[in-house]
Amino acid sequence: MKASLRPIGVFDSGVGGLTVARELLRQLPGEKLIYLGDTARTPYGNKSPQTLIRFALETGAFLSRKGVKMLVVACNSSSAYSLGALREQLSVPVVGVIEAGARAAVAGRRGRPIGVIGTRATVRSGAYTRAIHALDPAARVVAQACPLFVPLVEEGWTGHAMAIQVAREYLRVLKREKVESVVLGCTHYPLLKVVLAKVLGRDIALVDSAKEVAREVKTLLKAAGLASPLRSIPFAAHRFYVTDPPEQFADQTRRFLGRQPEVKPVRLPELRGKSGRR
Amino acid sequence: MKASLRPIGVFDSGVGGLTVARELLRQLPGEKLIYLGDTARTPYGNKSPQTLIRFALETGAFLSRKGVKMLVVACNSSSAYSLGALREQLSVPVVGVIEAGARAAVAGRRGRPIGVIGTRATVRSGAYTRAIHALDPAARVVAQACPLFVPLVEEGWTGHAMAIQVAREYLRVLKREKVESVVLGCTHYPLLKVVLAKVLGRDIALVDSAKEVAREVKTLLKAAGLASPLRSIPFAAHRFYVTDPPEQFADQTRRFLGRQPEVKPVRLPELRGKSGRR
Repeated sequence: MKASLRPIGVFDSGVGGLTVARELLRQLPGEKLIYLGDTARTPYGNKSPQTLIRFALETGAFLSRKGVKMLVVACNSSSAYSLGALREQLSVPVVGVIEAGARAAVAGRRGRPIGVIGTRATVRSGAYTRAIHALDPAARVVAQACPLFVPLVEEGWTGHAMAIQVAREYLRVLKREKVESVVLGCTHYPLLKVVLAKVLGRDIALVDSAKEVAREVKTLLKAAGLASPLRSIPFAAHRFYVTDPPEQFADQTRRFLGRQPEVKPVRLPELRGKSGRR
Repeated sequence: MKASLRPIGVFDSGVGGLTVARELLRQLPGEKLIYLGDTARTPYGNKSPQTLIRFALETGAFLSRKGVKMLVVACNSSSAYSLGALREQLSVPVVGVIEAGARAAVAGRRGRPIGVIGTRATVRSGAYTRAIHALDPAARVVAQACPLFVPLVEEGWTGHAMAIQVAREYLRVLKREKVESVVLGCTHYPLLKVVLAKVLGRDIALVDSAKEVAREVKTLLKAAGLASPLRSIPFAAHRFYVTDPPEQFADQTRRFLGRQPEVKPVRLPELRGKSGRR
């Protein structure tokens, strides 16, 4: 197959990366996506670097065998630790979500500190702080782990009074430090935008890296001569895989994409030389 | 090795099963434990039956190779689906936590409905309702999934005002139905006992299956002639394994057991014929 017609691989620990997939579909309507949600091992946000790297390499190998022309790591926790290992293993470009989010935060900078919220793994990695400092060494970064946000989103309590209270608790430090913006350093968090805006106030900008990632993917594909020549492709052409059988995922996909795709199960790590089943 | 001197295998998705391990250590001080926490794939509570069975068989195979004389499935979600498959695969007795919890609830029964709280997977399975009806077909069971309880416990917010509010939300139905007792159908929940008692009121009994499971293990070992002849063994003789590298687990173990054991990493599924590492 012509390289430009090959799909873009997108992976996440579960459904969160669908916020990135949604932006890719919006900004690159001619590109075919292969999405993998590692729902059997989700969430990634409390796990160790070694485990996150291992999971990323297993996922990368799977998507690579599917012939992707580029890999988008649509999970902040995974992006924080795995990009180096993935780039070493794969022959296609690998794009994470952290540099894009950092770029967007720095681009809009007015001089006050930049807030970053994410999972424990993402915050502990310091990856956002490093990425922001690489662009603007003078920027002050205040990072806060918010481990209950993902379970709140997955419980569907995004409009619930509880979400406001949990947010108040986590965001106290960011408010005290008078941050000018808050980078949503986890792909689940855009679903909490209303709550976050309410707690933070209107003058604090929320930076959603999904849009920036899609822009970066577009630029990179063009530069490499890999952009799809198609104007648009049907939704049914995209492929969605999950490692836990797909009933729950299919339901949640509707909340993220507004459409329910066909979802196929896959097992990771793939058992070489076997059918994948015992 | 003499069969009675062989260890008891205990497994859970992560740290929750340590509440069961703690009771085993208390009630059976002469028994050696091998504990496996599947921390790389935790939590189990939102995952599908097929995935839970696969994980249980992988864990069972690992503990079986360690020479255990009995397997305790110290995870309600796993017990709800995997006991049949485990008993088919293993040659040693397999004990779950659900029948024990059901027995304790029915034993104290006064005539009002029995409440059951657990993860989404446990409640969806209907396993508690079946186990209670097997003992008392007239008992009315009111089951409620509480998916945010595990993340709250793991965040350490068990004494937090938020925990009270989340509990109020989830337990509303149980209070309305005037349950006489509530079975803690997840091994994390004993850590929320103070909160639950506050929200439910003093007249509603909390049934902690860990104690009942330890009693059942004791009875079964004696009946099979497998009880350890030792009076007590040193804490350092117990073995703790996790699938995610052990730093976080070791920290959390102190909260559950009051002591910090040595914890070793293991990879599941084990790669046959290899060293277990790539």
